[in-house]
Amino acid sequence: MDKEYLSRKSTDPAVQEMIKKAGSEKIETVWDRYEQQSPQCGFGDLGLCCRHCLQGPCRIDPFGGEPQRGICGATADTMVARGIDRAIAAGTAAHSGHAKHLAHTMKKMARGEAGDYSIKDSEKLRSVAARLGIELEGKDDRALALEVAEAALADFHEKDTPVLWAATTVTEGRVKVLSDLGAVPRGIDHEISEIMHRTLYGVDADPVNLLLSGLRCGVADLAGCYMGTDLSDILFGTPMPVVSEANLGVLEPEAVNLVLHGHNPVLSNVIVGVAREMEEEARQAGASGIKLSGICCTGNEVLMRHGIPSCTHSVSQEMALVTGAVDAMVVDYQCIMPSMAGVAECMGTKLITTMELARIPGAEHLPFSEETAVENAREAVRMAIEGFKQRQGRPVDIPEHKSKVVAGFSTEAIVGALAKVNADDPLKPLVDNIAEGNIRGVCLLAGCNNVKVPQDSGFTTIARRMLQENVLVITTGCGAGALARHGFMDPANVPQLCGDGLKAVLSAVGEANDLGGPLPPVLHMGSCVDNSRAVAVAVAVADKLGVDTDKLPVVASAAEAVSEKAVSIGTYAVAAGLPTHVGVMLPVLGSPQVTEVLTSKINDLTGGYFMVELDPEAAADKLVAAINQRRGGLGLKL
Amino acid sequence: MDKEYLSRKSTDPAVQEMIKKAGSEKIETVWDRYEQQSPQCGFGDLGLCCRHCLQGPCRIDPFGGEPQRGICGATADTMVARGIDRAIAAGTAAHSGHAKHLAHTMKKMARGEAGDYSIKDSEKLRSVAARLGIELEGKDDRALALEVAEAALADFHEKDTPVLWAATTVTEGRVKVLSDLGAVPRGIDHEISEIMHRTLYGVDADPVNLLLSGLRCGVADLAGCYMGTDLSDILFGTPMPVVSEANLGVLEPEAVNLVLHGHNPVLSNVIVGVAREMEEEARQAGASGIKLSGICCTGNEVLMRHGIPSCTHSVSQEMALVTGAVDAMVVDYQCIMPSMAGVAECMGTKLITTMELARIPGAEHLPFSEETAVENAREAVRMAIEGFKQRQGRPVDIPEHKSKVVAGFSTEAIVGALAKVNADDPLKPLVDNIAEGNIRGVCLLAGCNNVKVPQDSGFTTIARRMLQENVLVITTGCGAGALARHGFMDPANVPQLCGDGLKAVLSAVGEANDLGGPLPPVLHMGSCVDNSRAVAVAVAVADKLGVDTDKLPVVASAAEAVSEKAVSIGTYAVAAGLPTHVGVMLPVLGSPQVTEVLTSKINDLTGGYFMVELDPEAAADKLVAAINQRRGGLGLKL
Repeated sequence: MDKEYLSRKSTDPAVQEMIKKAGSEKIETVWDRYEQQSPQCGFGDLGLCCRHCLQGPCRIDPFGGEPQRGICGATADTMVARGIDRAIAAGTAAHSGHAKHLAHTMKKMARGEAGDYSIKDSEKLRSVAARLGIELEGKDDRALALEVAEAALADFHEKDTPVLWAATTVTEGRVKVLSDLGAVPRGIDHEISEIMHRTLYGVDADPVNLLLSGLRCGVADLAGCYMGTDLSDILFGTPMPVVSEANLGVLEPEAVNLVLHGHNPVLSNVIVGVAREMEEEARQAGASGIKLSGICCTGNEVLMRHGIPSCTHSVSQEMALVTGAVDAMVVDYQCIMPSMAGVAECMGTKLITTMELARIPGAEHLPFSEETAVENAREAVRMAIEGFKQRQGRPVDIPEHKSKVVAGFSTEAIVGALAKVNADDPLKPLVDNIAEGNIRGVCLLAGCNNVKVPQDSGFTTIARRMLQENVLVITTGCGAGALARHGFMDPANVPQLCGDGLKAVLSAVGEANDLGGPLPPVLHMGSCVDNSRAVAVAVAVADKLGVDTDKLPVVASAAEAVSEKAVSIGTYAVAAGLPTHVGVMLPVLGSPQVTEVLTSKINDLTGGYFMVELDPEAAADKLVAAINQRRGGLGLKL
Repeated sequence: MDKEYLSRKSTDPAVQEMIKKAGSEKIETVWDRYEQQSPQCGFGDLGLCCRHCLQGPCRIDPFGGEPQRGICGATADTMVARGIDRAIAAGTAAHSGHAKHLAHTMKKMARGEAGDYSIKDSEKLRSVAARLGIELEGKDDRALALEVAEAALADFHEKDTPVLWAATTVTEGRVKVLSDLGAVPRGIDHEISEIMHRTLYGVDADPVNLLLSGLRCGVADLAGCYMGTDLSDILFGTPMPVVSEANLGVLEPEAVNLVLHGHNPVLSNVIVGVAREMEEEARQAGASGIKLSGICCTGNEVLMRHGIPSCTHSVSQEMALVTGAVDAMVVDYQCIMPSMAGVAECMGTKLITTMELARIPGAEHLPFSEETAVENAREAVRMAIEGFKQRQGRPVDIPEHKSKVVAGFSTEAIVGALAKVNADDPLKPLVDNIAEGNIRGVCLLAGCNNVKVPQDSGFTTIARRMLQENVLVITTGCGAGALARHGFMDPANVPQLCGDGLKAVLSAVGEANDLGGPLPPVLHMGSCVDNSRAVAVAVAVADKLGVDTDKLPVVASAAEAVSEKAVSIGTYAVAAGLPTHVGVMLPVLGSPQVTEVLTSKINDLTGGYFMVELDPEAAADKLVAAINQRRGGLGLKL
């Protein structure tokens, strides 16, 4: 395997080492399977295939020949719009399923049925309750938590009020814009079901109507994400800046390596606490201790709140196992490749599924419930210790690469840091610097690593350009993971990465906070549900400026998107009025009409739009141009 | 077009005539598009294609070569199970969306916000309320209707009780069986969302786990269907036997032909009333009157309650337009081919969409709301009258074929008819005749017409065999439509179609009811949501016999299934313990494991199972064998 071959797979040197090892040990990886799948079906790629009824499968000739319609008469436009709608519904179901799970956890906690949980951020509880219009007076935290949990659960079905986590989290102007479009969701699960209904054979055939309902479902996804963030912060604490590390080099050969993978902190957060108590047990088994690390957004959750290092992310998850150093991997749900079971078996790692809705053939299943959380967590740690014992005598290959990471930039953390600059008006320094041009704008880098893109190259290329252009970069999910592993969260790299204006701001805020240096070049805002934090920042800035979010010099990018969750997140970014870049092909290009609506006409409705651009340099140009255009709209200097 | 060519398309002579006409007038039909789509994608046919993330599309080599896994590592088993789960979710969303719509109608009616609606069956209202555990005492109908509507809406989300329309509609034993399997739904929309979550990239990879959650969602579909039936009966009246006609010959050249197509009676039922009042307006326009007829399940709804004739069904819906005699077609939602707009334009027919979630490019949109139902209905009739005026001078081709139909066999109607035989114990005659072997068993023929099957041939072949074997045939949806058009609902055909035992029973019940002849050979139970009526009959018989529904000599068949609704209906038939035939390929054969679970292993869990058999004669053999096996199990003579 030559260097060029490896760099087409991943730009992360640690991952490259493991790809080499996997190759020499004949361990099948995601990149091997991608090769096996190539060339991929062009109909599917373009969205021109439909399997929504038993008369199909149908497909449309993208070159204008026959067939131009499905058996039912669906055109390419109908087919593509139906397909993208179902993707939005699935993404919404995942984020909001995660949030619903937390709402149940909070409800059980408030009722005293889940004693392993408590309220970790009372202030956030009160601020969320107040935002929802819940009366605070005379209520203790538990009573309030119960009300918030019940309000959360009520947001899933139609009721007399719209989805509160949507209607109270965007600007007032945006509520109006979305209301006028019929895009305020009536209930999160209701919208998901309605999408499934209208995309059924013989229901909605109108592409624009389909896309508008997809937009509404995307706003429901914002609600699910925002709820997920709010409830996690209340139950597990709102993240504050924390120093840690990222990449496979965080694994320790002498320690019990327990890796936490998935998305929901409901178990992983408990494991973090329990692991500290079980250090002695690990030492008795001959280990130096217990080394926790994370993958994907469960990794982000425990990094943000506890400084647990991130081991790797997304497309390279198998590579963590290939080190041979992982004793157990506990997974919850979302983005866990079923292939992990096979690789774990090869490497002698215990792969432990924990959630009823996400089992994997070949994995051990440890049924988790909130009522027995600590007990479940202890069992998981014990399995890891057992795995450590079994590992002895087997070689491990831990790449030495790791990067310093300063993470933990919740909205509250950012506002808190700015408050050290201006206690009376924390947002003023940010707004002033934007106005003056020290900060050209804000770019959110979100989403996954896609096997079709050399891992991280989309994120690092765009981030590098943005920083040079003095664009403040905020990031979430596996995008944050990519930038963490490549040094973009190490304050020491500010001088080489950032333009002068941005450098000055990051340094000034760092100084005001006595950090002994600048903020890191890129601010890690959390997991993929925490794209809500980016919305919160944008809304705060918009409210401060007295404009709507579609006027801000704020853009979003999912450079290496994979999950249907990325599609639903992109949809709410567009609903919020943001120019939103996607760095991989969306299955919409088979429909000129849908493509035009998503990339252009929607701009007239929400002020946001999608930009599909596979070349990250070109994407960066477009993102900067979009920021400049917004600056122009606000009358700010370019 | 020779006869053989035509009979491969449809076995309905009226439809054949119109196919010929369409051919000579170069009107593209569903059969033309099927030819254009052939050969269809084998991967999709087998369920071996996945587009659930942006790394795909992926596909599995069905012949065992590479690739055997998707990029994420999903096997054929995972891929197929995920696909079928999403189909179940979509079907469930459609039926329950229809039911939710009616729950809102009822709520508005009860609150006095929809004065065009009223309670048409107070007895049914009270019996449904009682079944749900609602206190009846001292409440007037309106108050009770409000409570029932609210209970219905509450069934969509998780609450302290399971979905009431599932838990109160099956036998007690079945509730236990389903509880033990974790297959009692917690909320209809909740289950749909959960399916969308667990079928996301990197969530559930375990095919059995996926299928069990699909089963639970299927039970949620039963709830949606049952709710749809209950609320329709309360609002529009419970069907009682009614005489009518079916097939294109019901159209009248001199009349204003207004065709009602779709599924929900919420508008069509109002149109029936309004059309009667507007006869004079039609006559002033030169018409002999207003001729209403129906297509698909909206057709069934107005046939069952008002004797409105059925014009045609499912795959031949375009043929109604090809007559040139239809002045307007009002559609609501589900199974309306988008191609209808093009054919309508060719033929000068006004195609009128009415529901927000089902628009069709090229159709006129008349926005319907319950608050303005009569006004909307009048507008639709006026558009038809306008269409009639515009039609004058244009030739029409109405095939002369039509069949006499006796329909209207709701559960209540069947029990009522049996009560004339034994007033004290209405089910006794049925149970006794099953025990004695005059009736070998019961077969439900349900589902759509699929372009892959010569129209109606699956239904008529199986029905013919069942009747000869003295199996009581009940039918719903477009299966009912097929049998209606082919004379299976004309009592005059009992002698030639039915075996001696069945003939005697149908005659005895007919005589006891002073019908001047037997019941029709096949009993039309209603639209596709009314498969719930078949469940109700089975549950009543099971309770009477003191056994569970999986012990009964009752089978189900969807010989020409199309919609994802057919998949979810089939799932609840299996959940109820019925051997369930499907006459077209389900996209599951790519997974031997899923195929085995659905066709065999599930039998150990629910007592029901799927039989996929494309040859209707062979399917009939299997259905009879399954009935005989059940008879053996009950110790009844074969």
